[in-house]
Amino acid sequence: MTSKSIPASAAVDLRVDMPRLQQEILELAKIGQRPDRGLYRMAFTDEDWEGREWFAQRIREAGLRPKQDGAANLGTVLGEEIDEPVLLVGSHLDTVPNAGHLDGSLGVLLGFEAMRRIKEDGLPLKRPLEVISFSDEEGRFGGLFGSQALAGDLHPEKIYEARDLDGISLVEAMKRHGLDALDALDARRDPQSIYRYLELHIEQGPVLDQSHTNVGIVENITGLFKWSVRLEGVPNHAGTTPMTMRKDPFLGLSEFAGEIARILEENGTELSRATIGKVDLLPGVANTVPGEVVFSLDVRDPQQAVLDDIAGAMRKALSAIARRRDLYFDFEVLSQVRPVDCDRQVVQVLEEEARKLNLSYEKMPSGAAHDAQIVAKVAPIGMIFVPSKDGRSHSPAEWTSWKDIEAGANLLLRTLVKLLI
Amino acid sequence: MTSKSIPASAAVDLRVDMPRLQQEILELAKIGQRPDRGLYRMAFTDEDWEGREWFAQRIREAGLRPKQDGAANLGTVLGEEIDEPVLLVGSHLDTVPNAGHLDGSLGVLLGFEAMRRIKEDGLPLKRPLEVISFSDEEGRFGGLFGSQALAGDLHPEKIYEARDLDGISLVEAMKRHGLDALDALDARRDPQSIYRYLELHIEQGPVLDQSHTNVGIVENITGLFKWSVRLEGVPNHAGTTPMTMRKDPFLGLSEFAGEIARILEENGTELSRATIGKVDLLPGVANTVPGEVVFSLDVRDPQQAVLDDIAGAMRKALSAIARRRDLYFDFEVLSQVRPVDCDRQVVQVLEEEARKLNLSYEKMPSGAAHDAQIVAKVAPIGMIFVPSKDGRSHSPAEWTSWKDIEAGANLLLRTLVKLLI
Repeated sequence: MTSKSIPASAAVDLRVDMPRLQQEILELAKIGQRPDRGLYRMAFTDEDWEGREWFAQRIREAGLRPKQDGAANLGTVLGEEIDEPVLLVGSHLDTVPNAGHLDGSLGVLLGFEAMRRIKEDGLPLKRPLEVISFSDEEGRFGGLFGSQALAGDLHPEKIYEARDLDGISLVEAMKRHGLDALDALDARRDPQSIYRYLELHIEQGPVLDQSHTNVGIVENITGLFKWSVRLEGVPNHAGTTPMTMRKDPFLGLSEFAGEIARILEENGTELSRATIGKVDLLPGVANTVPGEVVFSLDVRDPQQAVLDDIAGAMRKALSAIARRRDLYFDFEVLSQVRPVDCDRQVVQVLEEEARKLNLSYEKMPSGAAHDAQIVAKVAPIGMIFVPSKDGRSHSPAEWTSWKDIEAGANLLLRTLVKLLI
Repeated sequence: MTSKSIPASAAVDLRVDMPRLQQEILELAKIGQRPDRGLYRMAFTDEDWEGREWFAQRIREAGLRPKQDGAANLGTVLGEEIDEPVLLVGSHLDTVPNAGHLDGSLGVLLGFEAMRRIKEDGLPLKRPLEVISFSDEEGRFGGLFGSQALAGDLHPEKIYEARDLDGISLVEAMKRHGLDALDALDARRDPQSIYRYLELHIEQGPVLDQSHTNVGIVENITGLFKWSVRLEGVPNHAGTTPMTMRKDPFLGLSEFAGEIARILEENGTELSRATIGKVDLLPGVANTVPGEVVFSLDVRDPQQAVLDDIAGAMRKALSAIARRRDLYFDFEVLSQVRPVDCDRQVVQVLEEEARKLNLSYEKMPSGAAHDAQIVAKVAPIGMIFVPSKDGRSHSPAEWTSWKDIEAGANLLLRTLVKLLI
């Protein structure tokens, strides 16, 4: 797509209506809340629908018209009559099970508040502004469904095969709400129709919180590879097999885990991450030397070349360990996602506006996946992070101070204004 | 108990009837065999009962009388009329699920064949000889049930609480065969009533097979401690949490696993074993840095002092790792068994007879638990090992050559003769 330039100056000093925004954040935080204080608004559940209906009502109250596409992405457009590519802003309203109240919701509500303030102020717009809440970002049926639909990443088979952990199909789940899942194929947008996409999100990591920084300006969204690695040895009796006669794959895994820091130091940057989060031993009993271990390896970095280097070094390390310990080694690539760069001009505007607002900010990568990563396939993107208390997310402990929310909201508002006028 | 001396000489050159023995081993190997070729004679099942009935029939055919005690230990006595402490020989007929045909069965059948040959030869005995098959050695209801009953290690509560993995109680399972489980308390023997206990068993390890040795003469049965260790850190997002801000308990476990070899080298002997066989990560998903890991630690050595030293070193290593990595560490002792020494005089006779038979032998510890370990509480014990092909056991792949079985059988026979006349 072509990268259209952003006008050099704009002399508008709008601010969000904080009391209104707080009330809405707290109202939405009650929808789908269970006694454990966690939120349960998984995509296409009744609770998700209640949250969406609540949002549609806010749109109507603002004198706007709710709009839903074939993938059940929900939002509204300001300045629909203007025949120019649209500036998109949003995130998602669905949650994981036992979620906090900010992941996704904050991006939708702050985008919508910004639109309302722009509408209230009667600013003359050069292009339309659209708020969008993407459906099933969190993955009841695989995740990033709405943004994939918008980016044209879906095909009928993928839609037919999508099921949740209880075996309910996406087709059934959407039918319950009177929707035809195949209509998601019509949600695809022409890249020429989108000017830029902006998303504000909680960081879901500890960096901003620990450095007491108001906002993060995202420079890129990390790429990743996820492997399922298998080391096979020989199961043996824990009492009768001398240490020197063992082929213990767990000791092989342990040795590899101990080399991860070195591999990242040699091949990565301070932004590289590698995690072993899942380990299965076979037979997995106390009195048997394991015969096989299968483990997950999740590696992330914002540069594809770095990811490639780390992948090569990990393969070498695993092969060498397996050879030395007489183990059989193989791995399966579970997923592979290329890093995405944010639009440089958006990053520049975000920096300028943050300075004007006297906010402390940090330019940083996003280590988590977001709808923005998918939308990047059809439009230039920008992202704002607000701090996550202790880095907590996907938990009722998720928290961002009102001060930081206000900072992020005003930065989003002013940046949208800059891109609109 | 007092250790009575063994007469210095005996000039009897008996040998087992190998064709008869082979036929019986192969016959018993069919009882409880399923299409997967594995044996399923778990204690108190119909298949176990069929095996026992087959054994009782062999006893009757030999002109002897089957004898069953309150714990369902099954056997027979030769020279019952002699008013002297009995020489016990045996093992167990029950199996684990999907078992091989030698574990336990070999000890019972070879002990019985020895008794038959002694009877056939009309040897004048100084003391009675009793063959015994202990019930539930393998652990459908916890294991070593029959030998614990004989050693007086049971109490009513333990009997009432015993259940198999399907929730069936020992009381119900024994009732199905017309037995009262509480009668097991009557199976207790007076230490003065037992002269010695001998058990022949497959090694269940690779040592004899790899060194092409005919038999192992067991010097002691290993002691062990089994811990469940917990390291607790902080669960975090695998993408957003910098490596330096993590408290990853799996990396703590990996570091500890890498120190096991050093700990054994510094505090143990070549007979020490340490195994991590079970590892559980929480939450155990690929995209989350684990917040907690629980793992099993199984450590064995034939000397209690060595076990104590290793336990101390392991605690220190785990504490230091937890401190350095800011993890919380605790552990639970799941079991603790003291090592048992075999009777020196029995070991001496076994060595003499092995030499007379021109057998290659190795004096070695038993790394696995056996009924002998329990019987040791009330009588001096001795054990003979025969080689396990590739160390395989608890599997249909369990195998010992007929040549080695014959060697072990004749060594057992001659040693029993020496202890009887």
